[in-house]
Amino acid sequence: MREQFQEELNSVSATLVQMAGLVKTAMENATTALLTADLALAERVIAEDSVVDEIQHELDARTINLIARQGPVASDLRTLVSSLRMSADLERMGDLAHHIAKSARMRYPATAVPPELSLTIEEMGRVCVQIISKMTNVIENKDIDKALELEDDDDAIDALHRKIIQTLLDPNWKHGIETAIDMTLLARYYERCADHAVSIARRVYFLVTGAYAKQ
Amino acid sequence: MREQFQEELNSVSATLVQMAGLVKTAMENATTALLTADLALAERVIAEDSVVDEIQHELDARTINLIARQGPVASDLRTLVSSLRMSADLERMGDLAHHIAKSARMRYPATAVPPELSLTIEEMGRVCVQIISKMTNVIENKDIDKALELEDDDDAIDALHRKIIQTLLDPNWKHGIETAIDMTLLARYYERCADHAVSIARRVYFLVTGAYAKQ
Repeated sequence: MREQFQEELNSVSATLVQMAGLVKTAMENATTALLTADLALAERVIAEDSVVDEIQHELDARTINLIARQGPVASDLRTLVSSLRMSADLERMGDLAHHIAKSARMRYPATAVPPELSLTIEEMGRVCVQIISKMTNVIENKDIDKALELEDDDDAIDALHRKIIQTLLDPNWKHGIETAIDMTLLARYYERCADHAVSIARRVYFLVTGAYAKQ
Repeated sequence: MREQFQEELNSVSATLVQMAGLVKTAMENATTALLTADLALAERVIAEDSVVDEIQHELDARTINLIARQGPVASDLRTLVSSLRMSADLERMGDLAHHIAKSARMRYPATAVPPELSLTIEEMGRVCVQIISKMTNVIENKDIDKALELEDDDDAIDALHRKIIQTLLDPNWKHGIETAIDMTLLARYYERCADHAVSIARRVYFLVTGAYAKQ
């Protein structure tokens, strides 16, 4: 009985890792679509977001069913409740990749990102994907050191965010208000995605250590 | 036993209603602070956000404890899991009011919102607070008709959001990029707050009827 329950707990964790993998791919592809005006890739990210949503629904139903059948207490219950929260974070991260892909689609055949910001957005996408990778490692291997590293990686995203806003406010900015609005929202999507990843890492940290990571 | 459990379920719902009341006040005050450059009021919203966070922590601990002690199944378990999700939505709505208040504080002693957008932002705040009121009613009285109405109210927020973006893109816009960035983010905060309220109403709708409201 206990062995079967442990298997079911492992399978919940495996599904979270699967969701994280899909979100990582979505964020990589959304960034590429954005920077290269790749409409087909943007459409793929938009279409595949529903896969993440479906996995979340199935996982949450399975998790609630497990709580109902096994009546877990203490750390097992906390693990399952955290799983519900992490799946919600992952679902939202998928939405944010979806928003980025929609921004690419909206400006097609033009490239949504002007040349001055291309490298910064590329870097923001790269750091965000790296954060998602590390977060996946934290979920999969309960790697607490990586969970702490994510706090610093998140500072890197915040610094890139500030850099984008500074570029928009530069008197030499020549791409007008519409592009500034797009860039403001894009920067926010990446930042929020990283926030959710850090939040997931903190939940794992708490489950493993019983203490809060620095905030 | 069953009676005590029912009382505890009611008390969970009462705490959600309490959180909703605090979020409503925060959103009202944040909008007033924003439109009237009221620094003291902005500071109050910023400081009081931690009250919502603390209530959420206490409520979630109580909810998890209730699941552990009572081992609820079927609709009781779904109600408690939904409560965890609703408290997360409410906490996030509090954060968004906090962001709006910070925007007011950042521009003080100037008013963050330029005259052309003052009425639209006021309307956005008003509709958002009305949505939060209706959502509170949905939580408190399981009022399914109000839950459905919220879908239309959310359309009103989206229309106001579009109106703000149109104003920013008007060739006569004379407040520059920085104010456009502020307005883009403010409009998004109100929109996301309303989204969370609608999401809460949909959860209640589903708990009561077993069916999904139109999305």
